[in-house]
Parts: sequence; C-alpha cells; structure tokens
Amino acid sequence: MSSSSFQPPQRVLMGPGPSDVHPRVLAALAKPTIGHLDPAFVGLMDEIKAELQYAFQTANEMTMPVSAPGSAGMETCFANLVEPGDEVVVCVNGVFGTRMKENVIRCGGTPVIVEGEWGRAVDPDQVRDALKAHPDAKIVAFVHAETSTGARSDAAAIAAIAREHDCLSIVDTVTSLGGIELKVDDWGLDAVYSGTQKCLSAPPGLSPVTFSARALEKLKARATPVQSWFLDLSLVMGYWGEGQQRSYHHTAPVNALYGLHEALVMLHEEGLENAIARHRRHHEALKAGLEAMGLSYVVPQDERLPQLNAVWIPDGVDDASVRRRLLEDYGLEIGAGLGDFAGKVWRIGLMGASCTKRHVLLCLSALETVLAEAQAPIERGAAVEAAAAAYAA
Amino acid sequence: MSSSSFQPPQRVLMGPGPSDVHPRVLAALAKPTIGHLDPAFVGLMDEIKAELQYAFQTANEMTMPVSAPGSAGMETCFANLVEPGDEVVVCVNGVFGTRMKENVIRCGGTPVIVEGEWGRAVDPDQVRDALKAHPDAKIVAFVHAETSTGARSDAAAIAAIAREHDCLSIVDTVTSLGGIELKVDDWGLDAVYSGTQKCLSAPPGLSPVTFSARALEKLKARATPVQSWFLDLSLVMGYWGEGQQRSYHHTAPVNALYGLHEALVMLHEEGLENAIARHRRHHEALKAGLEAMGLSYVVPQDERLPQLNAVWIPDGVDDASVRRRLLEDYGLEIGAGLGDFAGKVWRIGLMGASCTKRHVLLCLSALETVLAEAQAPIERGAAVEAAAAAYAA
Repeated sequence: MSSSSFQPPQRVLMGPGPSDVHPRVLAALAKPTIGHLDPAFVGLMDEIKAELQYAFQTANEMTMPVSAPGSAGMETCFANLVEPGDEVVVCVNGVFGTRMKENVIRCGGTPVIVEGEWGRAVDPDQVRDALKAHPDAKIVAFVHAETSTGARSDAAAIAAIAREHDCLSIVDTVTSLGGIELKVDDWGLDAVYSGTQKCLSAPPGLSPVTFSARALEKLKARATPVQSWFLDLSLVMGYWGEGQQRSYHHTAPVNALYGLHEALVMLHEEGLENAIARHRRHHEALKAGLEAMGLSYVVPQDERLPQLNAVWIPDGVDDASVRRRLLEDYGLEIGAGLGDFAGKVWRIGLMGASCTKRHVLLCLSALETVLAEAQAPIERGAAVEAAAAAYAA
Repeated sequence: MSSSSFQPPQRVLMGPGPSDVHPRVLAALAKPTIGHLDPAFVGLMDEIKAELQYAFQTANEMTMPVSAPGSAGMETCFANLVEPGDEVVVCVNGVFGTRMKENVIRCGGTPVIVEGEWGRAVDPDQVRDALKAHPDAKIVAFVHAETSTGARSDAAAIAAIAREHDCLSIVDTVTSLGGIELKVDDWGLDAVYSGTQKCLSAPPGLSPVTFSARALEKLKARATPVQSWFLDLSLVMGYWGEGQQRSYHHTAPVNALYGLHEALVMLHEEGLENAIARHRRHHEALKAGLEAMGLSYVVPQDERLPQLNAVWIPDGVDDASVRRRLLEDYGLEIGAGLGDFAGKVWRIGLMGASCTKRHVLLCLSALETVLAEAQAPIERGAAVEAAAAAYAA
C-alpha cells in the first residue's frame, strides 16, 4: 500500500477536545523547524515557561510542558511524587479519577478511594473523612474539571484540606486551564497538569505541568528513583532550566511548541479573565438554547463546567446516528459519553477557539434539525431565540 | 512578561537531528486539526501504520508511533518487556546505550553491560560471551546507529546471537530508520524504536515503534503490570488497533501525525532503497571534502553511519566559537559532541531532507572558511573540489 497526502475534512470541533485550533496557531506549527538547542529555541522555551506561569497563575519555577499528551502529564505527577507504599487519597467521580487510581497502583502506591457520583463535584467532606481515616496518607489527588462528566470540583477547598493533613495535592486541570478560574498559587495546589487541546486550543500532544516548592521537596527526598526516565522531573528540569546552559535530556517537539507558544500569546493578548468570561458567556447562551429544546444537563448548575456541557441523550434517540449526521451533514463534532456515560450522554465542548457565538448557534440549529429528523421528543424553533436572548441579557 | 509571536531564524540543520523539515511536511502540520476519534483520522492512523511497516520492513501488526519523542519510544520497549529481576544484556558504546542501561534499572531489571569503545561498532563476540556468562538473560539491547558517535553496529548479527540464546532484542534505530538498511523482519529484531526528526525529516516529538510476535508474547506473559500507564502497549494497541472500533487511551497528537504521515508518504514516493542510496552518495561527497580539508573521522570506515559524520575537532580550535560562527554567519547548525566526546568531536548530520548536494557544499565551504578564520591547521581550497569529484565518480 502506498498512501497519498492527507486532506482532513473540514470540521467544527465541539467535543471534549481537541477544540478548533486558530489559524494563527496552525500557521505557527508550520514555521521552519530549528534545532532544540538553538539559542533562539532556548529563548522560546523561556517564554513558554513564563506564559504557562501566567496561565496557571503561579510563580512556580518548575512550570513547563511535558513533551507528550495530558495522560503523560498525569503520569509525570504520580511517577515523581508517589513512592512505593505511599497512601494516596484519590477522588473518583469520572473517568479521569479512575485513571489517577490506576497511576497510583502502577507507581506502587496504595490508593484510598473517595468514591464520588458521576456528574457531581467531589465532596470535600468525604475527602476530610478519608484523611482522618488514613492519617498516613501523603497525597490527595483529584480532578478539577472532569472531562468525562462536565463537573467542576472546588479545587481550593480540597487542596486546603489536603494541606491541613500535611498532604500534597495532585490536580488534573486538563479541561480547566484557560477556561475557568484556576489559581495554582492562591489555592495552594502542589502538582498540576493540563493539556493543550482544550481551552488553550493548541493541537493535542503536550501537557503543561507545574510543581510547587513543597512538591519538589518530596521529589528531592525520594528514597527510590523515579521509575520513568523520560518523565523524571529532576532530569527534565535540567533541560527546561534557566538560561543557555541546558543539559540534553530528550529532543523537544519543536513545532508543537511553536503552536503552544502562539496559543499562549493569544491567551495573554485576550487576558485570562476575559477568556474565562467568554467561556461563561457562551455557555449561558448554549445552555439557554439546549434547555429551550428540552435537553437537560447531567451536572447540577453550580457544579457545572461552562466549557463542557454534558446533556442526557433524549429517550429513544440513537446516539451514534445523531453524531454521525452532525458530522456528515454539518462537519460538526460533538462528544460521545465516556465510561458509565457511553450512549447516555453527549458532551458539547465550548473550549478556546471553539467558544464563539457562531459555534453556539451552529450547534443549536444543527442539533435541533438532526434531532427533529430523528423524531426525538424535543421542542422545535425555540433554541436559537433562547440563545439570542441570553446573549442580549 | 507578555510575549509576541515567535519568528524562528532561518537555519540549515546539519546536526544530529532535528534535520531540515521539507515544506510539504511543514504544510501538513498546519492543516486544520480534526478529532482524534474522527473516522477520517482513524483512516490516517491506518495509513501511518502501513507506511511505518514499509519503513521498518516489517509485517508486525504492532507497529505505530508512540505519542512522544524517541526517549519515550526507548522507554516503551523497556517498560513493556523488562520485568523486575530480568537480566538484560545492554551494549554500551555511546550515550544511548548508557541510557538503555538506565532504563533497565528503572524497570527493576539487572543490566549486564557489554562495554564497547565509543566510536566503534558493538562487537558481536562480546555479546555472545556475555550471554554465555549469563544464561538466564532474557533480552539483548543495543543501538543500531549510535547518534552520539556515528557508529553503526551489525544489527542482524547481534539479533541472531540473541535468538540463539533465546533472548529478545531491543534495538535503537532512532538515527537509522530511513537512512541506512534496516530490515526488522529479515533480521529478526523484536522491539524496535525510532524517531521522526532524523532521516524521516518530520519534526521531533513522535517515536515509531514495532514489536514482533515474540515480543508480544513476553508482554502478554508478564507477571507484573507494566509500570507506565501511558506507555503500556496492551492499552495503546487498543487505540491504534484495527478498524473503527478504537478504545480511547490518550488523545493522539493530531497535527504531529499529519506531519509524520506526509514524511512517510514522501519516503515511499522516493522509495526506501533510493533514500538509502542518497544518504550513501552525499556522505561520500562530504567525506571526500572533510578529508581533503584534513579532518578525520572518529569511526573506522566500515562501521560508519553515512548520515552522521563524527569528526575530530582540530587541535587548538575552540568548539563553541566555530559552531557559533557557523550558526550566526551561515545559519548552519552542526552538532556538538555528547558525553565523552563533548568538546572533542563535531557531528555533521546528513539526514533526510538535510541530505542534498547543496547541504554538502554549504557545509564544506562554510566550515572551511570559519576554520581558516580561526587559524585552524586545515588544507584550504581542496574540499569543494574533492566533493565534486566524489559526485562525479
């Protein structure tokens, strides 16, 4: 078999990520590759670190993108901080909490599970109870923005409880960074990882991480080496460290970093608070439209992520055929349910460059049309007007 | 601090990688991002697998790019195949053999080191002796093309010895894939990893790997789970497996894969044998020019990689200032020495899109000029003519 050049179909990405990548970011990806030890590239790395500190709202020196997707960012946190035998409280209220548990086990740790409800925030009282029952626990791990359910947890509250019990926090912010408030330093989060393909709207493939001084202390005090050479932060940091004297670790993904840099520049130009307000505003309009259609949200209002709208699939409607129609007729991608929610839930993303008025109106009108064609029990003709009213409010 | 869009300087990349990325590949990177579960993307994944099978000359079903750089490809092989307590024969004749040893240790294995000379091929007889002395060894690991020294080892011979002793082979082909002969199936290699930024001339950030059926048997028979969730091939393969029913594992780096796909399409268009012949041809010309200048190679002729030309830095010449002049005056990057060779050796890459007549002549004429300015003891005026004569031969 011999292949020919790939021509991607035109899509509008409103799933759980990747989100639409802005033409400026796409153009940045295509700039000529330079060497990863070139002085100009080292300067770029410094800028990326500084821009990530801004996005994370942190002064942590150890702030940089791991050269692999968000799952590797998660593993970076666990592999560096969990030592064999460590008890780790893991809050599970969706797919990514479950994955955290798996990471603890593979690092030789003992997970203490705080079992939450899918589609709900983590309950801080349950975390406190778990820590009282397990006074030797070293770490509390939880997901700030559960991409599988659309639930937002109170990261500040959970991290504060962790500190009260002398635990570090490991926090998944894959879907929250750049989309909702996230204050790493003010909230006292210790090891935080994210992704590029959600509210930052860079392509997938990198995982921004930041580690507090407390987290680095635990890393330095390890009795056993980090089991991953590639993810060992004590080595990675020599590469991403200060100034021109970098020690070679791996070869950075040069062009992917061009893209991330441009996305971060755009975030800074817009301003973090404006970006967060934008996610909120378009969410309100989408929500008004979806509810006018008769669809209902999985997550209670005050625990809901604006950038990830999980709604119940109406009775009698075939999940896959609706998503296929949206994709084929409108080039519109929305997300399927994951794990326990497969076939039951749609996840509609409003992330980064996919969070605009035109995305909201296309989604509402296309979904309404396809659902009507599928004879779904929905209200016709009300969604777009409701969204417009929300924008006017 | 607020940054502005990055404008990379214009470079000609003749270091140990990344190599120059062809404009077709750069353009592919900038194509609009689509979802990683989009049917069109799943089709792209199938094509990438098939093209990698061609490049590796293998029918291995388990052939795909790991979503991270070559170092993670290395770790994929060790983390999946080495179990705690396993004895692993590791051939060390440069930086990357040393890194293999580190990987064995972090996986809980016991490395048995075959100590080779830097700048020389691995000696198959030493491997045989090590296996005789360690009859319980499970794996033989070695580097086919040592990027730190420019030495090529006889992968077919070493893998055959491994098989005779009922061992699997783990083979680093980061710098060999697409540049010199590499026949995974004919040579019976078991777990092979590579990089994209060398002779394939895609940007860095992905690591093609291929696993034989024998390697998969060892993976399936493991008594302990793979310590890395992200690199666990039994999970990754569900994502890169056959047909449209993929199970979600991580989010693939969509645009980086566009680039790799285009680079593989270009390799197939040229033909693997033609690409290999091209690397040989330009190496002969570069070598003629370098030797006419009075520079000498680190590696004996019959153990030399055409795509990585390691030469001794002339006495009294300051390594860093010569490389800085080349970079600043000509935009030309050549590689510094690594590890034991730091400050003593230059590594001149002729990889992929950086392997052309114009690269050879620019390198020779710029290096000659800069060395002459530095009062280095070289022969002036002979290099370009010698290269031209080699092309004419």
